[in-house]
Amino acid sequence: MADMITITRKELEDKLFRIFDPLHVSRDDSKLIADTLIQAEQWGVTSHGVLRVEHYVRCLQSGGILPEAAFTVEQQCGSWVRASANGGLGIPASCKATDLVIDLAKEHGIGVVNLKESHHNGAEGVYANKIAQAGMIGMVMSTGNPIMAITGSCEATIGNNPFAYAVPAGKYNTLMMDVAMSAVADGKVQVAKATGKLLDPGCILDKDGKPSVMPDDYLSGGVLLPFGAHKGYGLSVMVECMAGILSGAALTHDINSWNKTPGHCGNTGHIFIAMDISKMMAVADYEKSVETMIEQFKSAKKAEGVQEIFYPGELEHRRAAQVGENVNLLPSTWEKLELAAQYVGITL
Amino acid sequence: MADMITITRKELEDKLFRIFDPLHVSRDDSKLIADTLIQAEQWGVTSHGVLRVEHYVRCLQSGGILPEAAFTVEQQCGSWVRASANGGLGIPASCKATDLVIDLAKEHGIGVVNLKESHHNGAEGVYANKIAQAGMIGMVMSTGNPIMAITGSCEATIGNNPFAYAVPAGKYNTLMMDVAMSAVADGKVQVAKATGKLLDPGCILDKDGKPSVMPDDYLSGGVLLPFGAHKGYGLSVMVECMAGILSGAALTHDINSWNKTPGHCGNTGHIFIAMDISKMMAVADYEKSVETMIEQFKSAKKAEGVQEIFYPGELEHRRAAQVGENVNLLPSTWEKLELAAQYVGITL
Repeated sequence: MADMITITRKELEDKLFRIFDPLHVSRDDSKLIADTLIQAEQWGVTSHGVLRVEHYVRCLQSGGILPEAAFTVEQQCGSWVRASANGGLGIPASCKATDLVIDLAKEHGIGVVNLKESHHNGAEGVYANKIAQAGMIGMVMSTGNPIMAITGSCEATIGNNPFAYAVPAGKYNTLMMDVAMSAVADGKVQVAKATGKLLDPGCILDKDGKPSVMPDDYLSGGVLLPFGAHKGYGLSVMVECMAGILSGAALTHDINSWNKTPGHCGNTGHIFIAMDISKMMAVADYEKSVETMIEQFKSAKKAEGVQEIFYPGELEHRRAAQVGENVNLLPSTWEKLELAAQYVGITL
Repeated sequence: MADMITITRKELEDKLFRIFDPLHVSRDDSKLIADTLIQAEQWGVTSHGVLRVEHYVRCLQSGGILPEAAFTVEQQCGSWVRASANGGLGIPASCKATDLVIDLAKEHGIGVVNLKESHHNGAEGVYANKIAQAGMIGMVMSTGNPIMAITGSCEATIGNNPFAYAVPAGKYNTLMMDVAMSAVADGKVQVAKATGKLLDPGCILDKDGKPSVMPDDYLSGGVLLPFGAHKGYGLSVMVECMAGILSGAALTHDINSWNKTPGHCGNTGHIFIAMDISKMMAVADYEKSVETMIEQFKSAKKAEGVQEIFYPGELEHRRAAQVGENVNLLPSTWEKLELAAQYVGITL
């Protein structure tokens, strides 16, 4: 990948600090943002990585994200907490919710944290994976403003509401999945545009409700389609019911888009679920079964033309191992980062 | 539907009692089986209805299902229980797990029941819906023997591991979804065969790993494909991790197929999750938001050729309201029921 920009983790972190410092984001919160975005980049999930900083800066500058808002617990019933990000940054609030849900599960077995008045929080898989690394089963969901047509419709009716889970996988690290309910994620359309690629058929409708494979047709007023037709539709509704309504966050069209209304609190909702395996069996025994299953997958009979079968999360772990302490950024991501720096009057 | 066989709920229940009585299934358990299968039939989910009785009878007669096995709690940590069906019928054990998880959530807010040494339990949606009718969010998952190829493979590697959820929806009854992780469910292939229909492309591979649309190509040694490619694959693995491994049930190929080895305990696993909404907000307020969302869906701009947009579960509730106290059975289902009756030496 000769056209990628390679930078060390530490250097990138410093650049992010320099961007967020003048915006009154605490160093602790900036560190959480850096860790989360860099984890996504190292996994190769460029659509949910450093690309997003420019958006966060725009929202911070226009008052749609409050840099000093606290993460507060609003309600608690045993191992179930409803918390609020109070209009602050989505990533630091989600990191705090993740730590809290791990603590709740450690104490009670099962932990659940609902979070409202939050904002875009990057890749849900980062949080689910952190729960798995604590020896637990993690599940994370988030709402977003409507960008997807539900089955039978040709207009944006619901967010593409991502869903992630992760479980500890012993010598295979973790087994994890992080998917949007649309056939293609919004961020991936942006990456397709940046890299000059077409989309698969069945992923989007243009602004007139007609099928298209051109990223620009989505970006200029089009709409995403659910994956697996009514199944993706039904799952996006589940996320709205669990991460949105149950959290007390905004519902569908009341969620503010950071693109269209960066000056307003997104009020997205999230849910974090953790199950402490050790309460029911030795984590090593659980991991042994996961390893056995992974080995069955890897040795299954391959379809014609397939070189290797991957377990969920394997490609991400492999990419992260390859880059080590480095991060490879797409040139378009670097440009966005330079733009963010320019907004706050610095050069990278 | 002139070719359907219409029977009252009561008459059908009596016929089921007459089939299960000689097999030493208690009247209470037979009632739970009848209620569960009839609910699926009334929803129009024929693939998970009375069709299945013939299988259950074969397993009972060959010792693969123990009619008098008890549902036992094996382990408890707060609101989280690991239970066993001890090789008994899947439906009664799942009904008991559903009642238990509702009680756990009533007491603690969140309840989770893992169930092992179970068997086929019909439609997961029936249990999730029962949890929703108690004013809670319900989530249910089940493992099954491998009948689906994972992404990159052309042989059966994992079950199509169904997933269901349901939430209370006020005047719209409940919002619910029950889906298999395959592009088409095993039972639906059987219904396609019975009704002489072809499958959609991308649903199955034949025994040589070649794509096909003929139901028989799956039924004679073929394999199902995941829905949404790697997304359906990843979700089927999640179900295996949560409903199977975490329950202490058999893993993938160790799960016995009721078709191929009816004389052995299936040892499928299930997980039942309930969240008592009232612990965090008034259920009426929750339902109000769900109603608003449903009304947004119903009034969304329709795609060309679409008459009406449905919320998840709407078609099922509508079909159930239409039949009232009746059940409409497919002729092929009726034949299977007659076969089951014949096995136990009675006529219907």
